[in-house]
Amino acid sequence: MKRVMLTVAYDGTNYHGWQLQPNVTTIESVLNEALSALLREDIRVIGASRTDTGVHALGNIAVFDTQARMPAEKFSYALNQRLPEDVRIQASREVPVDFHPRRQDSRKTYEYKILNSAFPMPVYRLYSHFTYVPLDIVKMRRAADYLKGEHDFRSFCSVYTTAETTVRTIYDINVEKAGDLIAIQVTGSGFLYNMVRIIAGTLMEVGRGNLSPEKMDEIIAACDRTKAGPTAPACGLTLVKYEFTGENGQSV
Amino acid sequence: MKRVMLTVAYDGTNYHGWQLQPNVTTIESVLNEALSALLREDIRVIGASRTDTGVHALGNIAVFDTQARMPAEKFSYALNQRLPEDVRIQASREVPVDFHPRRQDSRKTYEYKILNSAFPMPVYRLYSHFTYVPLDIVKMRRAADYLKGEHDFRSFCSVYTTAETTVRTIYDINVEKAGDLIAIQVTGSGFLYNMVRIIAGTLMEVGRGNLSPEKMDEIIAACDRTKAGPTAPACGLTLVKYEFTGENGQSV
Repeated sequence: MKRVMLTVAYDGTNYHGWQLQPNVTTIESVLNEALSALLREDIRVIGASRTDTGVHALGNIAVFDTQARMPAEKFSYALNQRLPEDVRIQASREVPVDFHPRRQDSRKTYEYKILNSAFPMPVYRLYSHFTYVPLDIVKMRRAADYLKGEHDFRSFCSVYTTAETTVRTIYDINVEKAGDLIAIQVTGSGFLYNMVRIIAGTLMEVGRGNLSPEKMDEIIAACDRTKAGPTAPACGLTLVKYEFTGENGQSV
Repeated sequence: MKRVMLTVAYDGTNYHGWQLQPNVTTIESVLNEALSALLREDIRVIGASRTDTGVHALGNIAVFDTQARMPAEKFSYALNQRLPEDVRIQASREVPVDFHPRRQDSRKTYEYKILNSAFPMPVYRLYSHFTYVPLDIVKMRRAADYLKGEHDFRSFCSVYTTAETTVRTIYDINVEKAGDLIAIQVTGSGFLYNMVRIIAGTLMEVGRGNLSPEKMDEIIAACDRTKAGPTAPACGLTLVKYEFTGENGQSV
């Protein structure tokens, strides 16, 4: 028996998110089906980030156990033959049998894209959120700076969270603009339910002048979801990178 | 009566190209339908670039005549309410009644995108052509340089062309790489049928080492479609910009 780790990229537009649910197609369900058919075993993957409906990924992580003799590196090729074209394995390799992607120290990088122009642009519509209200990215950057470091992010967390603690660390957060596209890129130790989308929604409120950047301090301190901005739409969000750190992580 | 010019952006994935054809949905057909319904007149647009099935545009041009009193600038807003979300008007304005978009001097800019990585990336799949064969962009740039200027581009033109002359001028052509995405951007006085896709296909042959950059001279001189590379797939192509130049153009 061996444990195989997959780096999984997908266009989330046509999926009900990552997690297995009855009667809908999810990333987890298509992975389980393709793997089970390929290996003729009953395969159930364990995912690292259980992304929401409509969220995209360049590199989410899944692991599974198999009796197959095929070298772990070959799974990416074999599996891509069986997956729909909006899901593609980017890499596969063997990991220790006790490796669990949600119990490892890790750094995750998400990107939230906003198209800020007079009219929506069709080729960006699936991968960005559109707003014609002009956003001041200098203010957005100033607001984003308050989020860096270790904080209790309860104000930036869906009230439906089941997390034991709402303390997280943001290592880095950047707001960049290229043409009409604004990208908020954030790297952290972990993210609470809807946290990146609430950060994006709050930074947009700052960008359009409804909140001053300096208000961020108060919003964080309040530990109250109602103080932050709205949850920005899912289509703008992409899980860019999932890196394992620490002792166990460096070995995989 | 006035003539209105529309700047039209679209995701070509779900369309049988620009041009009106029986029994299929085209960009021209959805524009005619939306305009006719909005204005309660029988509207038929005249398009500038009749892009192929699957080709995208950030700024194609269409003009039409109407009796409507609505200021030309307002058409973009009203029309976007009635168009499918993969077609969006970026601008509308009045032009002289004798303005014909295909009879004006103009500069067109196209971009051909190639994803050059080990595996396809789902979020890029609709707007780029994927190849895992490593492409040498230094060689591709050297080859592209031969195309600059005025040439008879018969070798880079579908044999199904109906053009009177195959002489065209390329003002600029650049090959850039950002991450795994290669972009060939080309600006010219006009392009023959499939010309940009044949240029892209030929530069890819150079990039993978099947053709030396110096061969481009011979390929151009041959005036023979069979000497150039294959026609690259439509999904990688985007009409970026359409600019009107010259006396009449400057007035619009």
